[in-house]
Amino acid sequence: MTIHQRTITLPPHPRGFHLITRIIQNQMPELSTIQAGLAHIHILHTSASLTLNENADPDVRQDMETIFNHLVPENSRDYIHTMEGSDDMPAHAKASILGSSVTLPITQGRFALGTWQGIYLCEHRNRGGSRSLVITLFGN
Amino acid sequence: MTIHQRTITLPPHPRGFHLITRIIQNQMPELSTIQAGLAHIHILHTSASLTLNENADPDVRQDMETIFNHLVPENSRDYIHTMEGSDDMPAHAKASILGSSVTLPITQGRFALGTWQGIYLCEHRNRGGSRSLVITLFGN
Amino acid sequence: MTIHQRTITLPPHPRGFHLITRIIQNQMPELSTIQAGLAHIHILHTSASLTLNENADPDVRQDMETIFNHLVPENSRDYIHTMEGSDDMPAHAKASILGSSVTLPITQGRFALGTWQGIYLCEHRNRGGSRSLVITLFGN
Repeated sequence: MTIHQRTITLPPHPRGFHLITRIIQNQMPELSTIQAGLAHIHILHTSASLTLNENADPDVRQDMETIFNHLVPENSRDYIHTMEGSDDMPAHAKASILGSSVTLPITQGRFALGTWQGIYLCEHRNRGGSRSLVITLFGN
Repeated sequence: MTIHQRTITLPPHPRGFHLITRIIQNQMPELSTIQAGLAHIHILHTSASLTLNENADPDVRQDMETIFNHLVPENSRDYIHTMEGSDDMPAHAKASILGSSVTLPITQGRFALGTWQGIYLCEHRNRGGSRSLVITLFGN
Repeated sequence: MTIHQRTITLPPHPRGFHLITRIIQNQMPELSTIQAGLAHIHILHTSASLTLNENADPDVRQDMETIFNHLVPENSRDYIHTMEGSDDMPAHAKASILGSSVTLPITQGRFALGTWQGIYLCEHRNRGGSRSLVITLFGN
């Protein structure tokens, strides 16, 4: 079994949910050499996250932002970690709800995703800046 | 290290949380050959999800449905992705909150789950239809 | 590719979010032998969970507890699984929202975590008792 690991950096994205499947694929040419395996994509931050969701209608990505803002509202009087801005503590909570990594099957040299599945970068800060990912592919 | 990968299809399940541990085990006879490894189970859809939770009292699975319906209510006026039915956008959000895959340890030919842990199929649509899973086992 | 797997037991922690990165590292001396790989850390319980989040300001961990208690309130009249105490059903839901495992990259003998990322034990019961984890490291 072989393993390929690389760190990539994404340019700043606005707060919200963004489709990054193609960026990941293009950065990992070794993907085509794996017949059966797994891909692990990990974000090195605690106020942004990764998930899989619908890759077609951009309205889904906008509603995801709406729903997560309802789930974890800003400016609660109960928060004590407020020094880094009103968007910071909700960003940490959203990051743990969604998760810091996704693991995908690899089949015949490609990500084995469903027809409608894409990889999302979830940027929870108003100005999150660049985000780094560690991508690990392994298999036969 | 060896790797075994297979796609299986689950028949339609009603909206809610369903225990599928035995179905997965029965579809993967190679499990018994792995002394130490991992199993990755991935759902190829964006309105259903997988998680681990209590395998005994069915009331837990019913309360999970109640809790997730409270977390992401239907018919919010804030949603713009409404064409596919009132259960669709909440289903996408629930799928990302719970996740598209679970990864479990394999020890001495079995899933190394806790006494009370089982694998749940979480069907978030009213009529989700068949659901396909890619199961990947690897280890020594 | 080599694989190392071990079960460890954490002593009882109070309800809340606790940083356990060093405990995990200290229990897995084989980590230093892996140049590129992954670590999978799995909790064998359904009312506690694991996540990655901020490792510096303890206020973040306190606010996480506040936020998750808002997300899944206790004592809802809608719950039917109530026999094991008012904290039990919310604990199951929080465990599935956060997840039973985390997977991290390993690079040059260390967990490849971001500067601010740490591993959290999320104890959702008032008196959860000891918690067991299965840790699996693999790579070259």
